[in-house]
Amino acid sequence: MATTTEVSSTEFNVVGTRPIRHDGTEKVTGRARYSADIQLPGLLHGRVLRSPHAHARILSIDTSKALDLPGVKAVVTSADFAKPSGRVSDLTEGAIHNMGFMANNVMAGEKALYKGHAVAAVAATSPHIAEEALGLIDIQYEVLPPVLTLDVAMKDDAPVLHERLASLANPGLRPGGLKDDDDTGEATNIANHFVFESGDIEQGFKEADVVVEREFDTASVHQGYIEPHAATAVWNADGNITIWCSSQGQFAMRDQTARLVGVPVSKIKVIPMEIGGGFGGKTIVYLEPVAAALAKKSGQPVKVTMSRTDVFQGTGPTSGTHIRVKMGANKEGKITAVDATLAYESGAFPGSPAIPGSLCMLSAYEVENARVEGYDVVVNKPKAAAYRAPGSPASAFAAESVIDEVAGKLGFDPVDFRMLNGAREGTRRINGVRLPRIGYMELLQAAKDHPHYSAPLEGPNRGRGFATGFWGNGTGPASAVASVNSDGSVSLVEGSPDIGGNRVALAMQVAEVLGIAAEDVKPAIGDTDSVGFTSNTGGSGATFKSGWACYEAAHDIKRQMIERAAKIWEASPEDVSYTDGVLTHNSDPELKLTFRQLAARLNATGGPISGRGNVNPRGQGPATAGCIVDVEVDPDTGKVEILRFTTLQDIGKAIHPSYVEGQMQGGAVQGIGWALNEEYVYNDRGEMSNSSFLDYRMPTSLDLPMIDTVMVEVPNPGHPFGMKGVGEVAIVPPMPAIANAIHNAIGVRMTSLPMSPGNILEAIWSQQEDGKA
Amino acid sequence: MATTTEVSSTEFNVVGTRPIRHDGTEKVTGRARYSADIQLPGLLHGRVLRSPHAHARILSIDTSKALDLPGVKAVVTSADFAKPSGRVSDLTEGAIHNMGFMANNVMAGEKALYKGHAVAAVAATSPHIAEEALGLIDIQYEVLPPVLTLDVAMKDDAPVLHERLASLANPGLRPGGLKDDDDTGEATNIANHFVFESGDIEQGFKEADVVVEREFDTASVHQGYIEPHAATAVWNADGNITIWCSSQGQFAMRDQTARLVGVPVSKIKVIPMEIGGGFGGKTIVYLEPVAAALAKKSGQPVKVTMSRTDVFQGTGPTSGTHIRVKMGANKEGKITAVDATLAYESGAFPGSPAIPGSLCMLSAYEVENARVEGYDVVVNKPKAAAYRAPGSPASAFAAESVIDEVAGKLGFDPVDFRMLNGAREGTRRINGVRLPRIGYMELLQAAKDHPHYSAPLEGPNRGRGFATGFWGNGTGPASAVASVNSDGSVSLVEGSPDIGGNRVALAMQVAEVLGIAAEDVKPAIGDTDSVGFTSNTGGSGATFKSGWACYEAAHDIKRQMIERAAKIWEASPEDVSYTDGVLTHNSDPELKLTFRQLAARLNATGGPISGRGNVNPRGQGPATAGCIVDVEVDPDTGKVEILRFTTLQDIGKAIHPSYVEGQMQGGAVQGIGWALNEEYVYNDRGEMSNSSFLDYRMPTSLDLPMIDTVMVEVPNPGHPFGMKGVGEVAIVPPMPAIANAIHNAIGVRMTSLPMSPGNILEAIWSQQEDGKA
Repeated sequence: MATTTEVSSTEFNVVGTRPIRHDGTEKVTGRARYSADIQLPGLLHGRVLRSPHAHARILSIDTSKALDLPGVKAVVTSADFAKPSGRVSDLTEGAIHNMGFMANNVMAGEKALYKGHAVAAVAATSPHIAEEALGLIDIQYEVLPPVLTLDVAMKDDAPVLHERLASLANPGLRPGGLKDDDDTGEATNIANHFVFESGDIEQGFKEADVVVEREFDTASVHQGYIEPHAATAVWNADGNITIWCSSQGQFAMRDQTARLVGVPVSKIKVIPMEIGGGFGGKTIVYLEPVAAALAKKSGQPVKVTMSRTDVFQGTGPTSGTHIRVKMGANKEGKITAVDATLAYESGAFPGSPAIPGSLCMLSAYEVENARVEGYDVVVNKPKAAAYRAPGSPASAFAAESVIDEVAGKLGFDPVDFRMLNGAREGTRRINGVRLPRIGYMELLQAAKDHPHYSAPLEGPNRGRGFATGFWGNGTGPASAVASVNSDGSVSLVEGSPDIGGNRVALAMQVAEVLGIAAEDVKPAIGDTDSVGFTSNTGGSGATFKSGWACYEAAHDIKRQMIERAAKIWEASPEDVSYTDGVLTHNSDPELKLTFRQLAARLNATGGPISGRGNVNPRGQGPATAGCIVDVEVDPDTGKVEILRFTTLQDIGKAIHPSYVEGQMQGGAVQGIGWALNEEYVYNDRGEMSNSSFLDYRMPTSLDLPMIDTVMVEVPNPGHPFGMKGVGEVAIVPPMPAIANAIHNAIGVRMTSLPMSPGNILEAIWSQQEDGKA
Repeated sequence: MATTTEVSSTEFNVVGTRPIRHDGTEKVTGRARYSADIQLPGLLHGRVLRSPHAHARILSIDTSKALDLPGVKAVVTSADFAKPSGRVSDLTEGAIHNMGFMANNVMAGEKALYKGHAVAAVAATSPHIAEEALGLIDIQYEVLPPVLTLDVAMKDDAPVLHERLASLANPGLRPGGLKDDDDTGEATNIANHFVFESGDIEQGFKEADVVVEREFDTASVHQGYIEPHAATAVWNADGNITIWCSSQGQFAMRDQTARLVGVPVSKIKVIPMEIGGGFGGKTIVYLEPVAAALAKKSGQPVKVTMSRTDVFQGTGPTSGTHIRVKMGANKEGKITAVDATLAYESGAFPGSPAIPGSLCMLSAYEVENARVEGYDVVVNKPKAAAYRAPGSPASAFAAESVIDEVAGKLGFDPVDFRMLNGAREGTRRINGVRLPRIGYMELLQAAKDHPHYSAPLEGPNRGRGFATGFWGNGTGPASAVASVNSDGSVSLVEGSPDIGGNRVALAMQVAEVLGIAAEDVKPAIGDTDSVGFTSNTGGSGATFKSGWACYEAAHDIKRQMIERAAKIWEASPEDVSYTDGVLTHNSDPELKLTFRQLAARLNATGGPISGRGNVNPRGQGPATAGCIVDVEVDPDTGKVEILRFTTLQDIGKAIHPSYVEGQMQGGAVQGIGWALNEEYVYNDRGEMSNSSFLDYRMPTSLDLPMIDTVMVEVPNPGHPFGMKGVGEVAIVPPMPAIANAIHNAIGVRMTSLPMSPGNILEAIWSQQEDGKA
């Protein structure tokens, strides 16, 4: 059951309708081409050799035997890549990746820093020969003790991953890095340590009638995209490189690869293939520079693909975390103080989402007195990558569990308690930034009003939980160009890969401006040579920023169509009006041209018409979400069954409601997986024990009820159509909501993810022990 | 030896230099992908069944046996295509193709009209099965007498190809068509009959001191592009069609195919592949609609390719012609009158280049009194297609031979005689249109001044010839879009396929405007969904019109770069100047940003920058050419050896001189082939006897001397850089120049092409007979 709560409404012709997506048929008929579908004459097959050790110094690499194997055309090691500096002082303003570390992650340099870390790669005439050649590469390792937990990593005498890592105090998004040459300090695994503070927490806790303090642990989980990584590269003799890959941003793939192979960005053309899921995990390069380096060395096209095990062991899951939250509230139901410490594993290189996680933790609330301290900590695991609302699910799991407990202790309904403390327009976040108009209060009201919230839930071991989440949403540069066809349609080229329905949502924004049908806009995703720079489809930003670029391109067309009609009518453009796709001469309204009629006459009246849009818009607006979940816990097995699930989201205005609902449902389902089953299981040598979809348990349709959606439409004043990003926040509340439901079902408060049968049983037993004691 | 004669000169940074073409490496290393290089999963192979008869009624087609052959997935006949009307009244304004006839040419309907005419096509899992299936298609023909010569075709009682053909009187470019339903008239093979007249030819001939009248014949010759036609199509279940083919215009392929398969243009995306030559012959569809229809019927991708024999027998050569020219001149060397009749074979469907041929014939001259009558005549041969300066080579062969003879009889040097009669700015062409500034007089002077013209030429059977030619040049709608990259380069997408160096010539125009290097512009040819409408690379128009679109796109970027610098400097755009790629604050000249520096800062200062250009420019300016040729004729074998060849051309301003020279040399070489050897040889059943490159004799490098080029630069006032189209006119003068040289060598005036050994010998013997008689 999908419902929409509209707080205010503007009339649109196209926005808010549900046209069939333009790429639907290609995808359901199997014609769509994904990253591994590229075939080229003379194509070589690349394979990556990965470290068997979680922490080891690479003493030597001998590739000669591999090169001697007939059919092997090239072997590359870190020596074949450019070496961007990892120094803090070399990080450019606004950089969110340390390219020195990225280079080392793509191909290990002095050390292998996790089991699965790439150490060499081979290109051969067949995948089998490439595989065989991997076994002929002779690497001498000095095995070092692996650092696998936050606990160990943060100890003063812990083995260090990076002998020169600088510990930053860095509340921005800037990544950590290596010390500068003149910087002497102790080696550390703490890449970043920061504190956000507001008000006076001591005073706040004094004013509290109830104080709850708990510690939480969350395991690493993988984004679990169905399509493994694959990249194919051609390196021409003139230095021009073409790369086919699927990603969340062809321009990011281009720019990162350029740095890692040492060429200017324009030497590389990245052709975006369809993407079988990304969720944040396909915003950084893994194979692209490797395929390029192998192509350069061999002089032939090279395709490199990952197996599922490669994906698990060699690409970024989200961080494991340890979070402590202490919260006080008074009898009136007002939160008086929060004190929190959050430690995020960044994996082998700095750059966990500790900062956004810490920032989002309390952003849906007005909390006067708060102190949030965060740590970004390197450990011998794969480098963490972005995953839907990076950092926020873990901090929300902690905070929303504690809020539930505090509310319960004070006797408040969980929604009512949040309403008493909820953020609104103008509320300051803990970093001092004031919130724009958001729909959190409307979302809470919608939850309260929803039949699910008040439906009876009877039977033993059943409980209902509620939680909410916050995400800041992103934006960035984006570009689009559109051209009018003689049949009255418009061809659109935009720069954002289509993960969850961008094509149709962008086409609809063009159609809305021009007063034509969404079906009359033909969207395509341009390669890096065919459209202006566009930042990643990430941060829930694509429909916002590329939509805005499309909006501008459409207006550029509209202006020219008005000018053309004016020329034909020998009038001035001011005398021509344009409404719902019809141009009218204002003083002589008999003179009319539909968009389609004028489109057919362009060539003969001055030439074709194209429009361009290039933007870096602000005003994306943060998103909030909530969910109501009913569970039943089997006390004998610990298995949690989701009986009913309703997800609510503050979405601004739905461009295409079906794909908004899809994002909400997808986020909910991934949250359920994260809550109940998914985790990286490591042995004490740092080897992942469950690197296949048989052993890494993602939810299937059989595990899930229908996910009901409630779109709360509070128009975003920062966008012409009032929309805001919707891709991420739905993953934030499911974990605490399910934990809260489990608590209501069996009285056990789960503080570790996943809440898998074994962990539930242990918690039950432990509570029974405590009861006995 | 290449030389340039500059009449006036403007300073440019990039225009006029010779950067390496961007596509060079891809092409010489074999990486460039041509039309037949497409491979797709599930690809079927298509073959076309062609009529064995030159003229036959199709009584029935039984495809059942072919369909029963295992591996055959689809068979199409004309019933599977849309049927655009061929009626004259349905021809849209400005149409240059009758789509009803084009449909019938692509797949024969009621009649097969030439040997090689497509009558059915098969798609099968292998080319061999497809080939085998062709033999299983059972077609009942009623064989009709073929009409193979202009003579026969124009007779009142000739068999008619089209029972309802309208004879037009049509001095425009509009093609002929079928009579409208209420139009009763005699059936005819004359599709068009027109007269251009000026002055009073009777009076003119009275004033003549010398009158020469001769008749000329030219044989059909093929464009001889190395790459045979190939097309691959996918027809998706949602009705979207993708076609990969090489052509002179992806938009023409799209629009023509859309009409022939009955879908709106935006349902088709045509992806332009590299083209291995076109010369006018790849401006119309042959296989594209067939591949699409087979793809629709089979539900699979289908590739259809032609053999060389298919190309000769199934695609358009240029027209065979019969031309009579009568010319009078007075003792002062002034042409007093011309009376000419030109008949052009159009092949099986109306639409020969009779009109441009007739129009160009005298356009390089100021002739007060002239009458030019033209005929467009259908015959049972492949439909004629455009070939470099369509129509002009045949008419120039006739007129320039007669001019040579008249000049000789009056005792004038051939160049001097042309100077006395040459056209200049303001001269009226025979259609009444005045010429803009052209460089014909400067070209004649350059010829006269050239060392070749006065070099001694000794030895028996050697002679020097001179002739000139005229071509109107074309233009049309064109589009480009360009985006600035962070490394200071610019990605360019334009709509003109690259036949002879467009990419670099267009990139150079962007670079010139922006003050950057040509190497810093990265050009690409957009598919029909990725760039605005662009008309064919034809009529020597691509570098002119798409260059202008690029010029506009670059200026659009320049404007925005100025605005951005102004924004950064908190100045108004008027305070910022932009010179040679450097932006300067006018009042504070210390404030400077290079293009590259600003390019790196775009994202952070407001977003990326793209520029668009959409034009349909006029002012393309006609082109003239001349050539000086020395030959030696072997009187025993009739073989003509080209000893020395200099081609001169009025080029406006060379954007990239190397590719201008290339066009001049290419035109000269094709002219030499046309002059000396190339011809379609038919038997009396209308079967071509020499449809392979073994039997159809094109010149090889061993047959040719170095072709010296003289670029005469008289800037075209109709273009910002003074350039004009250079692709076609060089093919016009070689035939008469060689004929004139042969005359000077052995005293024989050749009036038939080719001047092959056999024809030369016959002419020698015939002259000897005449001498004896």
